Amino acid sequence: MNFTKMQGTGNDFIVIEDLEEKYNDLGVLSKKLCDRHYGIGADGILVVRKSTIADIQMIIINADGSYASMCGNGIRCFAKYIFEKKYVLSENIKIETGDGVKLASICVCDGEFKGVTINMGKYNFNPISIPALSSSEIINKKLDTNNKDYYITSLLMGVPHTIVFGKLEDYEVCEGKVIENNSLFPQKTNVNFCEIVDKNRIRVKTWERGAGPTLACGTGSCAAVVAANRLGYTEGKVEVQVPGGILNIEIIKGEVLMEGPAETVFKGQFLTT
Amino acid sequence: MNFTKMQGTGNDFIVIEDLEEKYNDLGVLSKKLCDRHYGIGADGILVVRKSTIADIQMIIINADGSYASMCGNGIRCFAKYIFEKKYVLSENIKIETGDGVKLASICVCDGEFKGVTINMGKYNFNPISIPALSSSEIINKKLDTNNKDYYITSLLMGVPHTIVFGKLEDYEVCEGKVIENNSLFPQKTNVNFCEIVDKNRIRVKTWERGAGPTLACGTGSCAAVVAANRLGYTEGKVEVQVPGGILNIEIIKGEVLMEGPAETVFKGQFLTT
Repeated sequence: MNFTKMQGTGNDFIVIEDLEEKYNDLGVLSKKLCDRHYGIGADGILVVRKSTIADIQMIIINADGSYASMCGNGIRCFAKYIFEKKYVLSENIKIETGDGVKLASICVCDGEFKGVTINMGKYNFNPISIPALSSSEIINKKLDTNNKDYYITSLLMGVPHTIVFGKLEDYEVCEGKVIENNSLFPQKTNVNFCEIVDKNRIRVKTWERGAGPTLACGTGSCAAVVAANRLGYTEGKVEVQVPGGILNIEIIKGEVLMEGPAETVFKGQFLTT
Repeated sequence: MNFTKMQGTGNDFIVIEDLEEKYNDLGVLSKKLCDRHYGIGADGILVVRKSTIADIQMIIINADGSYASMCGNGIRCFAKYIFEKKYVLSENIKIETGDGVKLASICVCDGEFKGVTINMGKYNFNPISIPALSSSEIINKKLDTNNKDYYITSLLMGVPHTIVFGKLEDYEVCEGKVIENNSLFPQKTNVNFCEIVDKNRIRVKTWERGAGPTLACGTGSCAAVVAANRLGYTEGKVEVQVPGGILNIEIIKGEVLMEGPAETVFKGQFLTT
């Protein structure tokens, strides 16, 4: 089986093609391929399939075999792959995901891929949408848990996100676990600790719901910028420094655009059966 | 750069060729290639070089860039690679390592690789050789540390090894850390917890000196069999069950022969600079 290994801000993926839909148990396949000792090793697989509603379809399966509807870092890698393979002859690629059709805009210079911007869609502060058990929007609201006061802002950015603003060194990322599991969030929440550097730069470290610390959370970075803008901490295009690299995020007409790196690390042929 | 990814009992390696000695900083190269998110990902690299004293030379560099003189799981993968590439046209391959020349005997069936046995050399119970600060051999000797009594047997098997016999469920592998750092061992020691299943089968879990728990420690499995034989617990060929798989170990004329699996997982081309 031929594959391409890619990474975006340290979140790494194995891209495989399945245009003929030959693979029927992608969960089992992903667990096998993503194993870091016995397989290729990755955070997940990105499966290329045909789409009837977009230019192409991306299916994401996590390393544990579970299905993911969407992944900000994954879709940048996927878009680069599709562009370089010339499966779509346009710099604007419509990609079907489990979270609807996303638009990827490739930045090209002298015919070469330079970066990609993904329209991550709309955000929503409505507690019913997040979901959160609150009668009003959760904006810089005090949450007393873990013998500590956290000031939290929560929104839906594809998935539920909660942001805690402050100095990053004042928080261990694993503190996110108690916020994730707070009864305020019936479907739990991702937790992003966010430090404002200046009006156009923030630093973010994310505790991912069910997964723990990450090198870079695409939707979390978007949510942090949306929350920082709402509170007046930032404006315009914001550079987000995450442990795995840098993302550039901008809100235009209520939609969140995320630009960031995507790198092809190696191509290979998987040999074990 | 072309590479081959291999694994033996879950210990995984990137094999690269450097017959012309083009790469001069193998430490930097290994750190880059072994990174599991930004590189290919592995426990170490195995570099193929020419030898003036054996058929071929294997250089092992750990994922952290440090040099390793020898690795039981690595040399099985290396031997399979050399055999299949036909660099040596014999089923008995002399491999130069940092711990001297080792003999690898390939088991072939219908021209295909079936397994490989490595002559791991001699063991030594002499405390001066291990080294251990003891006036006599350390054979089932009580060590009171960590508020617990451990009965330890220590020997040199390429590197210092200590074996604690008992039920595996009675020990957490991380308990090895306090034994590793006991003042009895001036150069520290690897620690193997070993359960006797019957005369020809044992189970081993290893705390590796400076590294922590491992899926499979080749020299540790050899040391456990040597110690079990010395104490009369086992005899003849012994199947060693480690978390990463199975190794078969036999002592012949004072030398330890280790047979085990080696698998080519994928071949690839590394693309980032």
